[in-house]
Amino acid sequence: MSKKELIVREEILGSNKKVAAEIREKLEAAGVLVVNLLSSPGSGKTTLLERIVETLHPTHPLAVIEGDIETERDADRIRRKGVPAWQITTGGACHLEAKMVGKLLPEIPAETKFLFIENVGNLVCPAGYDLGENIRCVLLSAPEGDDKPKKYPKAFASADCLIFTKSDLIPYLPFDLEKAGNEALDLNPRLRIFVTSALKGRGIAELARYFIESRVNMIQHQRHA
Amino acid sequence: MSKKELIVREEILGSNKKVAAEIREKLEAAGVLVVNLLSSPGSGKTTLLERIVETLHPTHPLAVIEGDIETERDADRIRRKGVPAWQITTGGACHLEAKMVGKLLPEIPAETKFLFIENVGNLVCPAGYDLGENIRCVLLSAPEGDDKPKKYPKAFASADCLIFTKSDLIPYLPFDLEKAGNEALDLNPRLRIFVTSALKGRGIAELARYFIESRVNMIQHQRHA
Repeated sequence: MSKKELIVREEILGSNKKVAAEIREKLEAAGVLVVNLLSSPGSGKTTLLERIVETLHPTHPLAVIEGDIETERDADRIRRKGVPAWQITTGGACHLEAKMVGKLLPEIPAETKFLFIENVGNLVCPAGYDLGENIRCVLLSAPEGDDKPKKYPKAFASADCLIFTKSDLIPYLPFDLEKAGNEALDLNPRLRIFVTSALKGRGIAELARYFIESRVNMIQHQRHA
Repeated sequence: MSKKELIVREEILGSNKKVAAEIREKLEAAGVLVVNLLSSPGSGKTTLLERIVETLHPTHPLAVIEGDIETERDADRIRRKGVPAWQITTGGACHLEAKMVGKLLPEIPAETKFLFIENVGNLVCPAGYDLGENIRCVLLSAPEGDDKPKKYPKAFASADCLIFTKSDLIPYLPFDLEKAGNEALDLNPRLRIFVTSALKGRGIAELARYFIESRVNMIQHQRHA
């Protein structure tokens, strides 16, 4: 990277960090837990979200922001579940930035308790951008292979939670779940790990419980602050 | 994107294009066909390359450049097949650039007929960077889903060839091959399409033949130029 590129990049990241901190503060005060979902294209972010929505909605009011290069497809899928969803199409850009999320804050209904943000499908660039989330989840689908954590370390090192998806396909794949988990824990020992299959419903209840407990912790932490 | 960002980006892309054109000219003159493989992480680029290597080597001498954020894993896999391979680790950067490839040109053995470049696993950013290739292949693995072409249009619109991978998993997946192919052809009607399974050996011979024929065409085109 040239010196000029580096300076421009530092400026962008600095201003993104500031906006993200403002979003986090604002939404925490409103009792909204923000979850940022990060993965390769086709790891199953939207399908997992559909299952999470079915589990939490309507007892735990939630809203969803969908990030994509093009198309409204993912937001349409979530809206069909009766949940408010907004699509951000980046028109070529490879990640979401905090200011894109910030613009949508006035739209979020007052009763919302969870805001899920599905990032652009990309295991590299989104890892550098805080969106104001409380929890960052990285998804790794079994067909992607068990060698991914060390090849794409930043996504795994910066996450709070690792969600293995499409675990129903493991019998048909050369995929070692323990190896992949250990490789991720090597990079980031504080990772919470969940094994899921959106198709078979595996691990969804545990994951939903983790989000609910994380929100309770967030609110208790505020009271003690 | 800010005006400053745009200017820096234009400068980078302009200089990349120039270096890419030099690489293409140099390697074409030496009778080397360059193939750039582009896809999400875990679409099966390296495994497909292993099968291609087994089919072409040693009758059709080839060399491989592996791009990754971190680790030498992929180049090691190719070297084990007895083929020269170099790993470019970008240390965080989300795509290869032509100058990274240019630096390796002096290393390529004189008898080489094919140079395969495996890009960083990313369906977004690498699409903007010409590496001096004659053929750009985009891979889409069946587990990624049949809705990807229109969600990541640049990769599909800029490719010469679309390779469906992991087709052995289709029976276990909600994946419509025809739908995905038509969506890609909508974006880019000149796409050559191959359906492969590296695990079962499906489509590998056809793909190898396509590369061999493309090299013959390249050389004939030079003679008539």
